[in-house]
Amino acid sequence: MHESSDEHMLERILNNNEDLAAHNREHFDAAGLLCINLMSAPGAGKTSLLERSLLDLSKHWQCSVIEGDMVGELDADRLRKLGVDVSQISTGKSCHLDAQMVARVVHSKALDKLDYLFIENVGNLVCPADFPLGEHKRVVLLSVTEGDDKPLKYPVIFHNCDVVLFTKCDLLPYVNFSVARATQYVQDLNPRAQCFAVSIVTGQGIDDWLNWLSSAYLQSQKNMPVSI
Amino acid sequence: MHESSDEHMLERILNNNEDLAAHNREHFDAAGLLCINLMSAPGAGKTSLLERSLLDLSKHWQCSVIEGDMVGELDADRLRKLGVDVSQISTGKSCHLDAQMVARVVHSKALDKLDYLFIENVGNLVCPADFPLGEHKRVVLLSVTEGDDKPLKYPVIFHNCDVVLFTKCDLLPYVNFSVARATQYVQDLNPRAQCFAVSIVTGQGIDDWLNWLSSAYLQSQKNMPVSI
Repeated sequence: MHESSDEHMLERILNNNEDLAAHNREHFDAAGLLCINLMSAPGAGKTSLLERSLLDLSKHWQCSVIEGDMVGELDADRLRKLGVDVSQISTGKSCHLDAQMVARVVHSKALDKLDYLFIENVGNLVCPADFPLGEHKRVVLLSVTEGDDKPLKYPVIFHNCDVVLFTKCDLLPYVNFSVARATQYVQDLNPRAQCFAVSIVTGQGIDDWLNWLSSAYLQSQKNMPVSI
Repeated sequence: MHESSDEHMLERILNNNEDLAAHNREHFDAAGLLCINLMSAPGAGKTSLLERSLLDLSKHWQCSVIEGDMVGELDADRLRKLGVDVSQISTGKSCHLDAQMVARVVHSKALDKLDYLFIENVGNLVCPADFPLGEHKRVVLLSVTEGDDKPLKYPVIFHNCDVVLFTKCDLLPYVNFSVARATQYVQDLNPRAQCFAVSIVTGQGIDDWLNWLSSAYLQSQKNMPVSI
């Protein structure tokens, strides 16, 4: 009986989250911005990717970041050094952001002038997959140091995303990771996912990633509802 | 109101887990075995550490492994190749093992002849910290590729463990990770935690880790209740 009531509780929580994610999406669409949810295990390089991307994007576009962490503002402080607007969400004991946490920030932010809103989720390859936040695109980072079998072991997050970035490719000579094999595992789960092999250290693949961001932004402008 | 009922539900789940963990511990103590819960982010090298440890331990001791994964038996199959008894728990969408999942396996296993029981948790640096399984010792692996700031960002799991292994130390020349700084961060949170820098590739620190295991086993034999 307990298990069954737990299941109902979980279903209710997930349904509430879906409703709030749809609400957040309406705000994003009304503002005409592109919202991207970045997810990965701890230490796969989400903040480094953001630093590198914002260096380029900020020249021409208005960008903002929502940072999700259990505690502290280490990553937010790194990004603020670039002059970027960053809102911190401290999740406490929670292992993922949810749409309600994001809604609170969204309601306190002037979204109208923004072009890109990046949400850096808590480092976790499991739970964030079940909690959409209203984002237009879901991007998963997999560090090559984690091993190319991870899509097989954590399928939910790879099944339900738009892009997979294999990060830290400068370390490929020292680890047992096949980009071809990892790409195949991802595409077996999710044929529409685009995969890029990148390195912040050498610059490998960064242009491809930035081009994808531009295309996604342009596409979002075509698809935006004229008004809510 | 919803948040409050969610909190009560969570409290009840955690309390139930504590009770079942205590029950598992009674079984472990009755069998006179040492149970170790291995936790880390995905890809930090839990299975590789187990392979290396079992190669040595199996010469003299009866060892068994409980493998926790969302899906599949990839890691279990790797360990079975060593001739070690492995029980798989598939957690499905759950992001951690809990004491009830472990209890089901414990009740189906002949524990009496075992000396070491290793539990490899789901790759996740957040949720497993809240769900003790009845283990005597908690060991956290942090790959040096994840960055030395992780104890600051995921404090709960580091606060409540016995050992931290900094893994993949063969990659130290290529990443920005200070073992001294990471050790300090861990010990600021948890002064009783022992830290070892290890590499399966070069063998660095493996003897220290195996010596710790032996000491923990001997100590457990002194502390075991004579009967339950």
